[in-house]
Amino acid sequence: MTSEAFTGVSAFPLTPLRDDVLDYAAYAGLVERLARSEVDTITALGSTGCSPYLSRSERAEAARIAVERAGEKPVLVGIGALRASEVRALAADAQEAGAAGLLLPALSYQPLTHDEVFALFEAVTAEVSVPVVVYDNPTTTGFAFTDDLLERVAALPHIASIKIPGVPAEPLAARERVRALRGRIPESVSVGISVDPLAAAGLAAGCAVWYSVVGGFFPQAAMAMAEPARRGDHAAAAAASERLEPLWQLFRAHGSLRVVAALAGHLGLTADDPLPRPLRALEGDARRRAVEVAHELGLDEEL
Amino acid sequence: MTSEAFTGVSAFPLTPLRDDVLDYAAYAGLVERLARSEVDTITALGSTGCSPYLSRSERAEAARIAVERAGEKPVLVGIGALRASEVRALAADAQEAGAAGLLLPALSYQPLTHDEVFALFEAVTAEVSVPVVVYDNPTTTGFAFTDDLLERVAALPHIASIKIPGVPAEPLAARERVRALRGRIPESVSVGISVDPLAAAGLAAGCAVWYSVVGGFFPQAAMAMAEPARRGDHAAAAAASERLEPLWQLFRAHGSLRVVAALAGHLGLTADDPLPRPLRALEGDARRRAVEVAHELGLDEEL
Repeated sequence: MTSEAFTGVSAFPLTPLRDDVLDYAAYAGLVERLARSEVDTITALGSTGCSPYLSRSERAEAARIAVERAGEKPVLVGIGALRASEVRALAADAQEAGAAGLLLPALSYQPLTHDEVFALFEAVTAEVSVPVVVYDNPTTTGFAFTDDLLERVAALPHIASIKIPGVPAEPLAARERVRALRGRIPESVSVGISVDPLAAAGLAAGCAVWYSVVGGFFPQAAMAMAEPARRGDHAAAAAASERLEPLWQLFRAHGSLRVVAALAGHLGLTADDPLPRPLRALEGDARRRAVEVAHELGLDEEL
Repeated sequence: MTSEAFTGVSAFPLTPLRDDVLDYAAYAGLVERLARSEVDTITALGSTGCSPYLSRSERAEAARIAVERAGEKPVLVGIGALRASEVRALAADAQEAGAAGLLLPALSYQPLTHDEVFALFEAVTAEVSVPVVVYDNPTTTGFAFTDDLLERVAALPHIASIKIPGVPAEPLAARERVRALRGRIPESVSVGISVDPLAAAGLAAGCAVWYSVVGGFFPQAAMAMAEPARRGDHAAAAAASERLEPLWQLFRAHGSLRVVAALAGHLGLTADDPLPRPLRALEGDARRRAVEVAHELGLDEEL
């Protein structure tokens, strides 16, 4: 997998549990759906993949299943953990499973210094043989990269992409944000947008890849946004995103993970609630609303 | 251990590593120092004890050592983890090791809802047979309790104390803060202050216990603050805290963990840097300053 491959849509499937045990059959099914879709890559064990909640052995097994069921699609594997030695072990496991790339966030419990985060990326990239995506997600990790730090990290070997946690809503500001970052990192490193409701804006602003939650469950809906964006038709991409606004509202209100977990359960793709406790998929009125939205948007016809 | 025992000073030792392996000899030494001191209890595997960075087996072994070396002092054991089933397993391990109480934070990766946190505390307290301290530390966990939630959690069985992350600097506001919380929780549940630079203010405001980082390394310095506070001489406690202001400045600038880890290394109590990577004990000028401060304050004479 070359650095240039870090473009398009990378789909983030859930890693479903059943009675607190990895549900391998359901997971294989989720990955196979993505293998049949038009997404460019699959990222196993990202945030939506609940990776920090899983043990090393569960993660190794999930990585193997993802690679096995993804067919020709490259599989990226998340390797975030609090302890550096655990991250390095996870990187080795993921590569042994056949990962085409690795996704590395700066998980924190004690707030991390910039030098500590740089040293972590330095240690990991010195040992790996596949591309690495830098995952900046302050909401989950508690650590926010600065552009100075992204510039230092992006210059390390194997760094292929930076997953940013959004862009400003205003188009000119969004474009300026991506341009500013691009100006500080090598051309070979792509900038990718996460946070689905901001994806159309991010792609219009110059992001080359969308790290997508909705793409991990409803790849057609994701491609309906990503394909016009790829052709440069950002008005059509924005319209496709606008159409999904009822889904984005649920994502904003409850977190995307609880919404897609409820829908995956409702649609019979997983156990009724496939999340690791203490997390819970949507219940009650919120779940009924999610099911209603999925039906109105035709997402349930993707099955 | 009764609920009334959750008063005074609980000392939080580091769980030191050497070459990324638990340094049992150094840990035993740290706990034995505390066993000989005047602190009321020892809390193993808190935030300063780096518990979220350690494996289940490392944590079980550390809990056993702490109980064994603590002599007559009750040992509380931190059981925080992202996954509920892991928390429950850690609670079982800690009780088997002889823990007199458990310390439970609401660790998060995906931001948690209040109902999810309540359900976690409900599940854990339904299974345990020892008192539980509710640990509110938004800086490390990413989750901030509200008073509504603390009220619900404090009504659960086995809840013995709430460790709050500070009080307002202004004395009347601090007193009002503690009074407001006390008014919502059972009398049997103590309110404890953490964040050492705020401890004298918290004790003056009505907190019954100080969950103390400095007490885990320099118990005499901690008792020089806590003993006047216990007698109701809060002016003397404030003066003792003011004397430690150069140490508090280092805690605020670098995080208390990096400071005490550097001092433990410097004083030969542990390896030179006993922290799990990516965390690093203070180095260079900052470390020299910490050593200087410890000497000026006479902390190095406690050995």
